Amino acid sequence: MDIDCRAIAQSLKLNLMQQSLVLEEDMGIVPSLVSVSVNRTGDSSAYVRSKRKLAEELGVQFRDMDLKGATAAELESQLRDLSSDPSVHGIMIESPLPGGFDFQKFADMIPAAKDVDGLSTESQGLIAVNREFMRPATAYAIIKILEHLNVPGGSSVTIINRSKLIGRPLAMMLLNRDYTPTVCHSKTIDLQRIARSSGILVTGVGKAGFITSDYVTENTVLIDASINFRNGKITGDADYENLRDHIMAITPVPGGVGAITPVMIYTNLIASLMERSRISH
Amino acid sequence: MDIDCRAIAQSLKLNLMQQSLVLEEDMGIVPSLVSVSVNRTGDSSAYVRSKRKLAEELGVQFRDMDLKGATAAELESQLRDLSSDPSVHGIMIESPLPGGFDFQKFADMIPAAKDVDGLSTESQGLIAVNREFMRPATAYAIIKILEHLNVPGGSSVTIINRSKLIGRPLAMMLLNRDYTPTVCHSKTIDLQRIARSSGILVTGVGKAGFITSDYVTENTVLIDASINFRNGKITGDADYENLRDHIMAITPVPGGVGAITPVMIYTNLIASLMERSRISH
Repeated sequence: MDIDCRAIAQSLKLNLMQQSLVLEEDMGIVPSLVSVSVNRTGDSSAYVRSKRKLAEELGVQFRDMDLKGATAAELESQLRDLSSDPSVHGIMIESPLPGGFDFQKFADMIPAAKDVDGLSTESQGLIAVNREFMRPATAYAIIKILEHLNVPGGSSVTIINRSKLIGRPLAMMLLNRDYTPTVCHSKTIDLQRIARSSGILVTGVGKAGFITSDYVTENTVLIDASINFRNGKITGDADYENLRDHIMAITPVPGGVGAITPVMIYTNLIASLMERSRISH
Repeated sequence: MDIDCRAIAQSLKLNLMQQSLVLEEDMGIVPSLVSVSVNRTGDSSAYVRSKRKLAEELGVQFRDMDLKGATAAELESQLRDLSSDPSVHGIMIESPLPGGFDFQKFADMIPAAKDVDGLSTESQGLIAVNREFMRPATAYAIIKILEHLNVPGGSSVTIINRSKLIGRPLAMMLLNRDYTPTVCHSKTIDLQRIARSSGILVTGVGKAGFITSDYVTENTVLIDASINFRNGKITGDADYENLRDHIMAITPVPGGVGAITPVMIYTNLIASLMERSRISH
């Protein structure tokens, strides 16, 4: 069975459109987001375009700022300006930055209230101490899928990914919701056995065809968070055609986790503005 | 087999004594630590006394500050003074604080460089993004035991505890060292099966006799991080007498994790001072 991630995304978007209207009509706030990149390449341009399109649907003002040939000092100075500019509500730094740029250092210049990617040390710390504020979009999208499926608290969830975008914050977010996380990676011993022993398997390996029948059982719910390109086609980690009829449920790629992920950036943005306006009223 | 945690603690202490001497002789720095409590009770007094005794052994200046009847504002003001006082190198807040005091809020007033308990949002965030600086002492003690046992990277480690003192930071610290963590808790479904499936089992449940033979196999290495009182005796979570000869290895209580934990506070303190003095030289 395919998990209908487009339907989840659609329902989240409708909700955001309503909140965005409330912000504008009741409070006169038009949410605004700035995407900052340095020497952007083709792939990330496509991603930025899709985020811009979504912003327009949601009534969010989107500014695309590509700093061509910027030095680290120039990026720093730009981030400082955006951080202190009250008309900017959210800031994202697009990956990759040029070689030698320390991504985390720049992410940490964004104040928590504007860190819509949830990648700063403070945002990750707030997740770890169960005071979630901004959440990394992919991890958050996976949580929305689990909620949609009504996965009961206490259930085991195995993640094959230990990045700051997925595995690490997702493990803490799962604990915050009473799930039981296991975090696996390239060094994990006995990975197939561990993957099979858990009802929910999240994969973010980045290798097309990596997840074969050796990693699943007929009871597996497979959430495929990878976006790989193979033979000119977009595909996840799962050997989708061979698995889909032999496991409990699967998210397709495209049209799976990736359909929800960009929506979660705007959920971060709009929820934090709603929160702020509630406090000031 | 008992894991000889007192020997691990002893070797760590010898190392700290040497570093402490270097700091004093070469740099004229005597490490200093302040323990702050409000309306301290008997149990935590005993813990503070043992920390003071260890400080004396290690050449650390220890100040015990119990604020009797202090309000939240008074505690805040005291923490602000200690944070800006250059003669204070480390600050610990003793639990429990009076009802209504938000422990995390006070922990977050301690700057990262002085947060020797590793409980601030920033310290926990630094662990989560693999830039460990200050580590919660119990989690760090468990890492030292794994290193002592030469547990290979990739191995599975199951933790029954999801607190900010043990389970959460330990999971991230395990990932930072290539282990494969699973974090369980009171809501976990099928806990005994999960516990048995992992070579290393860490328990911090706080219930004497909780870990019975149902949770282990003959290959289990059991790290018991609890300190419980039963019938006037100190005991961990494990049914120690019945388990010790039927599993691979076990940490006794007392004389196990708890023998190493206080040493890790001073490891945080002295390592950060060594780091700082290296930078300034």
